[in-house]
Amino acid sequence: MRMIRELAEFEKLSHQVKISEEALRADGFGENPFFHCLVAESIPAPGEPQGSLVVGYGLYYFIYSTWTGRNVYLEDIYVMPQYRGQGIGTKIIQKVAEAALYKGCSQLRLAVLDWNKKAVNLYKFLGAQDLTESEGWLSFRFEGEALRELAGC
Amino acid sequence: MRMIRELAEFEKLSHQVKISEEALRADGFGENPFFHCLVAESIPAPGEPQGSLVVGYGLYYFIYSTWTGRNVYLEDIYVMPQYRGQGIGTKIIQKVAEAALYKGCSQLRLAVLDWNKKAVNLYKFLGAQDLTESEGWLSFRFEGEALRELAGC
Repeated sequence: MRMIRELAEFEKLSHQVKISEEALRADGFGENPFFHCLVAESIPAPGEPQGSLVVGYGLYYFIYSTWTGRNVYLEDIYVMPQYRGQGIGTKIIQKVAEAALYKGCSQLRLAVLDWNKKAVNLYKFLGAQDLTESEGWLSFRFEGEALRELAGC
Repeated sequence: MRMIRELAEFEKLSHQVKISEEALRADGFGENPFFHCLVAESIPAPGEPQGSLVVGYGLYYFIYSTWTGRNVYLEDIYVMPQYRGQGIGTKIIQKVAEAALYKGCSQLRLAVLDWNKKAVNLYKFLGAQDLTESEGWLSFRFEGEALRELAGC
């Protein structure tokens, strides 16, 4: 939860965080989880009193393309500021890519903010295609009052 | 399958359609379906020999936001050309919005091609927000060789 808030703050969108720890626990760790989560841990140096520390995470779920079938969507990827620049983010994406292939998926999709140049450049360096640029895909969202009105409530 | 191909042709991306009818049947109509599908049917006039005809569809699934919890993603929405302009597309989105609220979701997300002005204007008219414009979200995708390389295969 702390890292979810930190990521939202970094993205300058923390006002959009409405979830509770209880909801996350119920939704992700029940019998049919709605999402999967990988965590990156720092291993303590020998003799250090504190145990391993969670320093980043990747949260993904399965989506469906009517063109290619089941795929993976990486909803969140985050590494705590003091642990950046060590390849931890890359390692997290690699592990999610492994999980995608293991489950027979042919695509890994994600969204990134255009001003987050470091992330944009990393994903491109790792071989991702910017579909907004190459094909013109725009992300739309109905929510709150607009969603209720649409549904006639 | 026919309408999936028609939609991909309209979007000028039919080379990306790799799925089979068998895969769609197995993935969408088993015990734990990967997607849900609504179809629009035209009701035959009284005395007409042919039965009702499927003239459009909406295909959606559940996604997960670490900010708002479970949400709905409308992957495909399609109405056959000769049935457009009658509000069938709007009706399909409304039904998906109903399903989203019924399942406790607070958002309905979708993607649209920037040159598809009719769709862009319709979604905006219905109350959707263009997140690529307002927040700067870009869609990225790893696939094929890039995905395998990322996973170290």
